[in-house]
Amino acid sequence: MANPERVVVAGHPIVDVLAPSDDALAERLGLEKGTMTLIDGERAEQIYSSLGPATEVSGGSAANTAAGLASLGEPVLFIGKVAHDVLGEVFSHDIRAAGVRFDPSIPPKAEAGTGRCLILVTPDAEKTMCTNLGIGAMLDPDDVDAASIAAADVVYMEGYLYGDRHTDRAVEEIIRVASSAGTQVALSLSDPAWVDMNAASFDRILDRVDLLFANEEEALRMAGVRGVEEAAESLAKRCGTVAVTLGAEGSLVRTGSDVVHVQAAPVDHVVDTTGAGDSYAAGFLYGFVHGLGPERSARLGAVVASEVVSHIGARALRPLADLAKMSGLTA
Amino acid sequence: MANPERVVVAGHPIVDVLAPSDDALAERLGLEKGTMTLIDGERAEQIYSSLGPATEVSGGSAANTAAGLASLGEPVLFIGKVAHDVLGEVFSHDIRAAGVRFDPSIPPKAEAGTGRCLILVTPDAEKTMCTNLGIGAMLDPDDVDAASIAAADVVYMEGYLYGDRHTDRAVEEIIRVASSAGTQVALSLSDPAWVDMNAASFDRILDRVDLLFANEEEALRMAGVRGVEEAAESLAKRCGTVAVTLGAEGSLVRTGSDVVHVQAAPVDHVVDTTGAGDSYAAGFLYGFVHGLGPERSARLGAVVASEVVSHIGARALRPLADLAKMSGLTA
Repeated sequence: MANPERVVVAGHPIVDVLAPSDDALAERLGLEKGTMTLIDGERAEQIYSSLGPATEVSGGSAANTAAGLASLGEPVLFIGKVAHDVLGEVFSHDIRAAGVRFDPSIPPKAEAGTGRCLILVTPDAEKTMCTNLGIGAMLDPDDVDAASIAAADVVYMEGYLYGDRHTDRAVEEIIRVASSAGTQVALSLSDPAWVDMNAASFDRILDRVDLLFANEEEALRMAGVRGVEEAAESLAKRCGTVAVTLGAEGSLVRTGSDVVHVQAAPVDHVVDTTGAGDSYAAGFLYGFVHGLGPERSARLGAVVASEVVSHIGARALRPLADLAKMSGLTA
Repeated sequence: MANPERVVVAGHPIVDVLAPSDDALAERLGLEKGTMTLIDGERAEQIYSSLGPATEVSGGSAANTAAGLASLGEPVLFIGKVAHDVLGEVFSHDIRAAGVRFDPSIPPKAEAGTGRCLILVTPDAEKTMCTNLGIGAMLDPDDVDAASIAAADVVYMEGYLYGDRHTDRAVEEIIRVASSAGTQVALSLSDPAWVDMNAASFDRILDRVDLLFANEEEALRMAGVRGVEEAAESLAKRCGTVAVTLGAEGSLVRTGSDVVHVQAAPVDHVVDTTGAGDSYAAGFLYGFVHGLGPERSARLGAVVASEVVSHIGARALRPLADLAKMSGLTA
């Protein structure tokens, strides 16, 4: 390969289906506001039919990170499974149009469609998500592009891929390939409820992770402690570096015994925090592969996140490379 | 049927694919800015692959009108053809969620997918549209729900259905059924370029139309005259009533020799004029079936249009029935 990517990202390809909703509807559907629930196709059907008119836009946690990296000018490969259907086309188009390499083998006939996430947006801007992973949940070790991972500097995975599921074997294959090739392994913990459900699973792979991303709640639950500093200390003993995002409070990065605390980048008006963590990871990973060090990497993560929270949608609307240059963090 | 709809609407089911673009891209693709071009599947593929990340949202001119009528509280049936694919599901979901009855027979296997419209949105907010009608263009006389049309007060069609095309026979069947049942026939001229291409076709059916919708340019081209008053006079001789929208200048309605000129409803900030004409038609049709008379119908059209142009997207975000009540035009 002439120009292997230095970053490979793996996750669930998802098309988001955003529908305005009221609190009563979420309740009637038995959904807890502000959470993410995995649902099967039948339940998706039922919920979808209760929703008002919707808008479709590409999403997926790690896919958002991949799009952010590409916008920063970093060549990146995305690994994930889509079906031969319109949502698969939409997802593939959008991630390629964002500048990400994506060339999955698509089964000509599959039992499941491309993953989608039904998102109820209540007037308080809170989001209640119901995700039907579809064929994304069938990612196999065979779908993992071992050569590209071996050639990369870092492979980043969303935590949603792991936890007593079919995709566990793909994650383990990614870690195996990365370890033997000297590729760094990065992981996000994805979701506090996800951590609660899958803490034992994560525990099995945490020592193989070189760079861990978590928000405060995820870090606390994973570490099983009450303070974020303590959580970072505990997790950093197992992963080389731990980056904990703290919302408006910025982020905390710990490597061994070194701790840096970086402020959030200023935002005139926070419109929609969807994708904030994914974007932070994109900025941080860019810094990571370019040897910017924890502090500048975290600042770059903050800059990227500030762009994404300033408008509706989880992916950047401006070229992030320009923004990064303006911030003085990249050349 | 216990509660037949008083309004039936027929048109092309379309899912819009909105992508930010620059002027250079439209030019490179050989598209004239601000126009609508019909394209086949292969060309759609080619253009889509050149576009940046996009957002999908249900559209279609007459479908937007149907959604507007439902939002006004008017029961309405939509006639159009979708395929058994994800975009078909999306279109069907959204129009039903808007409150419109839509129960097409969907061919289990079709050569064409559900219609889509690729929309390049340039920084000046101008839209360049490339429409692949897909299976929508295969609407047959068999797809026309004759009983519902016969039971309705008015059947409204978008002009895009007519003009030396497969769907001509469906339009003629709709007119035939309507005429023999005493259902009024309403038609929009859809697009100035469309009128240029299909003036001879429209000329064949214009005497069968009871209510004609056109914007200024469409009216001038259809009538082949230079002044809008003159165009309305000429067209009103053939159709019972002609409603000509004049953008910020409001609208002009002519019935026989009676002319009313109605101002546009005030809008703080016009954000996106997509769907303005479709929405005006919704308001006007509501007034038409409720016997409000030309002036109040036109004012209701203006109120509905003012909601739709005040935000991005071609369909209302607020319940239009409330807005109509607030305006004092409905009880």
